[in-house]
Amino acid sequence: MNYYRERVAKLAAWMEETHVDLTIVTSPGNVMYLSGFYGNPHERFMGVIVPRQGEPFLLLPALDRDKAAGKGTMPVYGHSDTDQPIDVLRQALELKAEDMQKIAIEKTHLTVSRLEQLEADFPGAVYANAEDRLLTMRLQKDPHEIAIMRRAAKLADEAVRFAAAQISVGRREYEIVQAVESFARQQGAERMAFETMVLAGENSALPHGVPGMREIRRGDLVLFDLGIVWEGYCSDITRTVAVGEASDAQRQIYEAVRAANQAAIEQVRPGVTAAEIDRAAREVIADAGYGDYFSHRVGHGLGIDVHEAPSMHGQNGQILLPGMTFTIEPGIYLPGVGGVRIEDDVRVTDSGVEVLTGYPKELQIIDLA
Amino acid sequence: MNYYRERVAKLAAWMEETHVDLTIVTSPGNVMYLSGFYGNPHERFMGVIVPRQGEPFLLLPALDRDKAAGKGTMPVYGHSDTDQPIDVLRQALELKAEDMQKIAIEKTHLTVSRLEQLEADFPGAVYANAEDRLLTMRLQKDPHEIAIMRRAAKLADEAVRFAAAQISVGRREYEIVQAVESFARQQGAERMAFETMVLAGENSALPHGVPGMREIRRGDLVLFDLGIVWEGYCSDITRTVAVGEASDAQRQIYEAVRAANQAAIEQVRPGVTAAEIDRAAREVIADAGYGDYFSHRVGHGLGIDVHEAPSMHGQNGQILLPGMTFTIEPGIYLPGVGGVRIEDDVRVTDSGVEVLTGYPKELQIIDLA
Repeated sequence: MNYYRERVAKLAAWMEETHVDLTIVTSPGNVMYLSGFYGNPHERFMGVIVPRQGEPFLLLPALDRDKAAGKGTMPVYGHSDTDQPIDVLRQALELKAEDMQKIAIEKTHLTVSRLEQLEADFPGAVYANAEDRLLTMRLQKDPHEIAIMRRAAKLADEAVRFAAAQISVGRREYEIVQAVESFARQQGAERMAFETMVLAGENSALPHGVPGMREIRRGDLVLFDLGIVWEGYCSDITRTVAVGEASDAQRQIYEAVRAANQAAIEQVRPGVTAAEIDRAAREVIADAGYGDYFSHRVGHGLGIDVHEAPSMHGQNGQILLPGMTFTIEPGIYLPGVGGVRIEDDVRVTDSGVEVLTGYPKELQIIDLA
Repeated sequence: MNYYRERVAKLAAWMEETHVDLTIVTSPGNVMYLSGFYGNPHERFMGVIVPRQGEPFLLLPALDRDKAAGKGTMPVYGHSDTDQPIDVLRQALELKAEDMQKIAIEKTHLTVSRLEQLEADFPGAVYANAEDRLLTMRLQKDPHEIAIMRRAAKLADEAVRFAAAQISVGRREYEIVQAVESFARQQGAERMAFETMVLAGENSALPHGVPGMREIRRGDLVLFDLGIVWEGYCSDITRTVAVGEASDAQRQIYEAVRAANQAAIEQVRPGVTAAEIDRAAREVIADAGYGDYFSHRVGHGLGIDVHEAPSMHGQNGQILLPGMTFTIEPGIYLPGVGGVRIEDDVRVTDSGVEVLTGYPKELQIIDLA
């Protein structure tokens, strides 16, 4: 619980420095980060309200109030469908609207309509953006977050193990997706971090393929990409296996990807840039002659959101700091043939790297006997 | 295809009347309504751009361009992750930014950040809201839409039939959910309209329950609530069945709900208000002595969005017009005991009502032999 208080205190310190009177945090990820409560209010209003003077509180639809209050991190107010949430907010504040001269919001999340309601209720205020500050705070995970993410990664390992055991000739991609998601749920996953991918044969060569009716055949590469949400934090793992046998060409691209994954992981430590990690993987794949077939960044930040900062691409000069967590997921995709991707979740430690995902990375050939 | 041109022409006529120079439509539902393309660009920009003078076009992430262009309804421009989408928009317009003095946007969808980009690129413009106009246009479905919704409703009927056949003692709620969603997909559903609900026993008394590990037992009521998306339009059906046997109390609440569903349907015709439909169902349930246990509105509009206008609640004086489509879904929920809900999708015809869903509504007692 102290973690949440610390986070709010950090935000309040920024407000003091920048003379922000009131911060309204509305994106589900940032609300979760500050309050411990994850909700999706759809078109309804949900926000953590942090006044520079006074207690922070959570305002959300009345039907979620009890669940949110159960987190015990801050007072919770509910609004009904007949309330104007911004009116409720103003009343809960116990402060004069005129004293709110600078209000920080999330500009890429708050809608124009909500802004107009704020402008009506807080006349004369100017609006700053709280997003950069929150993004910076979330970049370095604290020990509480790391412990949760370790568990989310372990659950992802187990789900991949289960998925590999589901392979048989004639089974369809989507049948395995459903079996895996059912298994994950039984293991206690809150939800999947994104739509599970099981892609066989030529489909595995589509970096954003959608699992369908394709039946698994001997000689296919099958790519699994899945993630588990555990206590609000995401894992994200990819493994690729061969069915019954692997051709020389398949082995070649597999080993190039594995070496690229390893090379990138070995570069991770404080002080290195995101771009250097991307480059480490890309060089290995280019040297193996597949440079044209690694068509995406090497990874992405991971945490409450499945895609968050830092973006691990070749133009990102951002310096890695202890506590950052991200994926390393090089791939080679040969159109019409097949693809291989190997993805791990890693954390920057004080001196190097901790790999959170642990499923083996040697080429696994599924026995069809 | 002419349907899409007609819709854009109606919007353009409104722009002429209200002196709007440019409309930017960004919500996935309204983009689909005007262009035929349904996409979820996440944080990226997607919009139908309608200039008062000039051709409308669709602007979206480059990776969706081919798929959207395949709809053949309007020119499609792609933007890459390194473009500023609003810059691409301004270039594609072939009009002077200074001539855009009044711009209509979707204020409950567009973010403050996008508005600030527009303000920078179109200096001096004022911003109107296009949402009411689009909402009004979407209220009355055209024959093309009705034909699609009939098919979506038939697929929902088939999915309920399949679901009822999945019941056996000891089976868990979520197992049936997965079997049903798999079946729907095999039948050609694009996706489910919302998370399928299968709620057994005391869980059926939770109007927003989440299917879980509860095993089905003899004597349970089991409630199915599901919807299919077909060519971009949603269906939404609920049926409740009894497992092996039904107690007198269960039969009583079932028959009260069935009579309420029927009474509400019989009221549907042009000229009646949404509130009258709600009242027709509520009176039947109150007369049966369960007035306190029907805790939600009688229904909601249905179309591209699974919840859209008109809201079928007791305070909505909106007058029904031909072509409106909505659900009728009274329910009785006895905490700790069980619940019954019966939901149909209906369309207002020129003189009365067409019920789109057709699965039988007599109490079905699942044979366990």
